[in-house]
Amino acid sequence: MVPGHEVVGEVVEVGPEVSKHRVGDVVGVGVIVGCCRECRPCKANVEQYCNKRIWSYNDVYTDGRPTQGGFASTMVVDQKFVVPIPAGLAPEQAAPLLCAGVTVYSPLKHFGLTAPGLRGGILGLGGVGHMGVKVAKALGHHVTVISSSSRKRAEAMDDLGADAYLVSSDAGAMAAAADSLDYIIDTVPVHHPLEPYLALLRLDGKHVLLGVVGEPLSFVSPMVMLGRKSVTGSFIGSVDETAELLRFCVDKGLTSQIEVVKMGYVNEALERLERNDVRYRFVVDVAGSNIEEQAAAAGAPAN
Amino acid sequence: MVPGHEVVGEVVEVGPEVSKHRVGDVVGVGVIVGCCRECRPCKANVEQYCNKRIWSYNDVYTDGRPTQGGFASTMVVDQKFVVPIPAGLAPEQAAPLLCAGVTVYSPLKHFGLTAPGLRGGILGLGGVGHMGVKVAKALGHHVTVISSSSRKRAEAMDDLGADAYLVSSDAGAMAAAADSLDYIIDTVPVHHPLEPYLALLRLDGKHVLLGVVGEPLSFVSPMVMLGRKSVTGSFIGSVDETAELLRFCVDKGLTSQIEVVKMGYVNEALERLERNDVRYRFVVDVAGSNIEEQAAAAGAPAN
Repeated sequence: MVPGHEVVGEVVEVGPEVSKHRVGDVVGVGVIVGCCRECRPCKANVEQYCNKRIWSYNDVYTDGRPTQGGFASTMVVDQKFVVPIPAGLAPEQAAPLLCAGVTVYSPLKHFGLTAPGLRGGILGLGGVGHMGVKVAKALGHHVTVISSSSRKRAEAMDDLGADAYLVSSDAGAMAAAADSLDYIIDTVPVHHPLEPYLALLRLDGKHVLLGVVGEPLSFVSPMVMLGRKSVTGSFIGSVDETAELLRFCVDKGLTSQIEVVKMGYVNEALERLERNDVRYRFVVDVAGSNIEEQAAAAGAPAN
Repeated sequence: MVPGHEVVGEVVEVGPEVSKHRVGDVVGVGVIVGCCRECRPCKANVEQYCNKRIWSYNDVYTDGRPTQGGFASTMVVDQKFVVPIPAGLAPEQAAPLLCAGVTVYSPLKHFGLTAPGLRGGILGLGGVGHMGVKVAKALGHHVTVISSSSRKRAEAMDDLGADAYLVSSDAGAMAAAADSLDYIIDTVPVHHPLEPYLALLRLDGKHVLLGVVGEPLSFVSPMVMLGRKSVTGSFIGSVDETAELLRFCVDKGLTSQIEVVKMGYVNEALERLERNDVRYRFVVDVAGSNIEEQAAAAGAPAN
């Protein structure tokens, strides 16, 4: 498998029917590079829910060839799935917005959770969770980071600007926070109990699952009935929502927190990813790596 | 415990500060007869979600005395929890609307599921489920009754007017109905799998739990993420929603399907309830029972 699903680059060539983008534009491609255009989700412009969606990596394109991801010097993409990167947003900063960013922005928008003053919880502080804190703060929300230990307290509060930090194993703190949140963005990709978090939600609160968890999650029905709470989920975001998020980030001066590495570092980066040792996304500088390689091949020092 | 929680009667006396109702009015009382009036749910007029709500039976009132339910010749109730029964609605017909009816009407209204043409599923055909079919049909929805056997097919289709009947153990029929429903009203009060029903929902579909199930219900997160589906719940309805439902029923000519019995039949009715042997609610004619008792006591024949 070749990964790379938050891709930013410059348009170097366009086909005769391309109207959205021009040579020289800085553009982005996210997780989806194809859809059927006929189904209800496609017609509602939420092509991420199309059952025939094509992933930008590790999938098979309409021509029968594998999709190759974004760790490449060039990429051919249907203009529908290409978003302009607005001026004022550095390419490496924009990259994590194309998946991690829109994954949190889309449900906040769709479920009507954009009003200032809402109280939100971010469960799990990784690539998606850190964008959750940033987007929710930019919307003017009171943001509580919820984590299994106090290990990430300083980075949540000081680096990311969260308003509160809640350790889920601290029964007293959890009880004190009961009935206080309008939503929880749940980024945890492994099995976890839902009831302790449902208890944090207040009337009409929403628990939004963003992590793929193969083992069933469970709760007793009164936990949602009494308070009319919802357990729901969301899957990345549409191309339209991605473009909207990019403009939102420019307007709010919001950036992702990343570590830029060269291609030669990819294997080490993947090992560090498995140890959760990244704050909060690696961005691979493919073009810069190519320049280094060419320079090395020519015997000249890389700069 | 003295039950009786869908109560209709005539106002025989009012206190000096009562402005909503007058002596002689036909009125109803549902499940709730008290709330704190201070909390967020109370201020949003959804007092059924107040943590200090007082049930109309088997609870303790503000004066420390037990609430006695509706199987009584008279009942004292705060005017806030009393709804007018509109002209055109028979008292015995109105009774099941005060709990079973509003229990299905409230979530359809709250979750924006009132547009004509929506496709709904009613899971479980009992007191609440039969009102689900009737209310959904009156809203102009395409209604599928989902049941564990084909036993109730005729009553669902012929008596209640459902558009389709789906047997949940029929894998072929379930697969054919995949991705077809906008909502499922789940009235099943015992443990059941959720994933087969989540598969029936289409984009943004909502699974609304109305049955209190003590054993955890479960599903894997992609079942809600892919399709942005929600598992949610709802608990009866507010006094305002109840009054709205009663007017809706008069407008639509909608009635409940009931079996009226006298007080002397109550024990047999409870035994039949345990066997699910009622279509779909028993209504106890308390006033009529009293007349019979008085007549019997006076040695005259009951009429």
